[in-house]
Amino acid sequence: MTVSRYQAVIEYDGTDFLGFQRQAQGRTVQGELERALREMGWTGKAVLGAGRTDAGVHASGQVIAFDLAWAHDLAALVRAFNAHLPPDVSVRTAAAAAADFHPRFRARARRYRYLVHNAPVRSALRARTHWFVRQPLALEPLNAAAGSLVGTHDFAAFGSDPDHGHNTVRTVSEAVWRREGETVSFEIQADAFLFRMVRSLTGALKQVGAGERAPEAFEALLRSADRALCPPPAPAHGLCLIDVIY
Amino acid sequence: MTVSRYQAVIEYDGTDFLGFQRQAQGRTVQGELERALREMGWTGKAVLGAGRTDAGVHASGQVIAFDLAWAHDLAALVRAFNAHLPPDVSVRTAAAAAADFHPRFRARARRYRYLVHNAPVRSALRARTHWFVRQPLALEPLNAAAGSLVGTHDFAAFGSDPDHGHNTVRTVSEAVWRREGETVSFEIQADAFLFRMVRSLTGALKQVGAGERAPEAFEALLRSADRALCPPPAPAHGLCLIDVIY
Repeated sequence: MTVSRYQAVIEYDGTDFLGFQRQAQGRTVQGELERALREMGWTGKAVLGAGRTDAGVHASGQVIAFDLAWAHDLAALVRAFNAHLPPDVSVRTAAAAAADFHPRFRARARRYRYLVHNAPVRSALRARTHWFVRQPLALEPLNAAAGSLVGTHDFAAFGSDPDHGHNTVRTVSEAVWRREGETVSFEIQADAFLFRMVRSLTGALKQVGAGERAPEAFEALLRSADRALCPPPAPAHGLCLIDVIY
Repeated sequence: MTVSRYQAVIEYDGTDFLGFQRQAQGRTVQGELERALREMGWTGKAVLGAGRTDAGVHASGQVIAFDLAWAHDLAALVRAFNAHLPPDVSVRTAAAAAADFHPRFRARARRYRYLVHNAPVRSALRARTHWFVRQPLALEPLNAAAGSLVGTHDFAAFGSDPDHGHNTVRTVSEAVWRREGETVSFEIQADAFLFRMVRSLTGALKQVGAGERAPEAFEALLRSADRALCPPPAPAHGLCLIDVIY
């Protein structure tokens, strides 16, 4: 039986994980994926992931790749993989991939969604997935500020290069806030993201929505490229990696 | 400061609770509510609840009542109560109530929603709130069978009288299945429910949706009033008490 490369879309509830990436100690998504695959005969070194999500961050569209000798069809692969995974991680789809496919280096873009529960009173049923913000958020200034992100900019004010280089220039293709009842959501797509970039953007944009910072002041923060001027990042549990585009 | 009765709508994620009702041991919603109120000066005997939901069952519209000496307004009461409650229980609204208001005895009807994730592959992000059913469920037979529940019937096939009496007659005013993407939901409203009734109905109706039992056979099960003929109840984590009507 020959070994082939597979790619898969996975979903996880990040609450009880120290993040995607395997660590010496503690529960990680990568660690659970590798444990499950090992039970299916996998002898590889590492499962590759498209995005190294932080502790507490969720995913509905994370993409992984791994090499496996598998004698059955793809539906059986998904079923077996899910049977070996805990309830808070699941494989949604799997496909054959080129032998050199790398989910991170091949990705053309990533898309994240940040959920805010914007209401006078908190909600127990949204505690794991929404950031509770009591101050009313206004959509018009939020979208005026978010609009200034679209294009190619130095985003140094909102995060550092995760690869420890010094390239903090990224290209954002979409950044939109929407309201649906008590839920205010922020969706942003870019070629790649800096470390903590979406949470830092959300933390700063929340000030704009609450009337504490003008959209123009937000633009000035972006242009400053000075991380020291950025307000604290929004909490991890509101964030979800929803898509990786190839 | 005089003691007055208050009613409140509360929400909880039932995952980590042994149910609503206080028990000698273990974490319950009532226990958390009473602990929080005690920290606010409450000296009552018990918080009253409209529905004694099972271990694992959620609520977005549970109603409670309690007597409290409170010097501030209702918004401050909600804020203080929430500040003393853990993340998985929250108070949504509060109002003054008549001194003899009892949320259970005064309720004219209760409404529950059962969520099924009906797809070929399970979803980690729905693991706490949806019953994963792989077999495709057909809406037409589901609603044909559910329609037979509307009206006044002896529901003994689907549960026992929670008050240890022998009255298993209840009146269902609505019972409807809907599909939205991969989510199939069942909403049912009745004057009152038997112990485990919604979960037993859902377990039996799922067989109808999967084509394992004809709607006519479901009706025959209802008419049998024989609990021994009922298939196993659907799991607790798909169920949510969404409304109590006065």
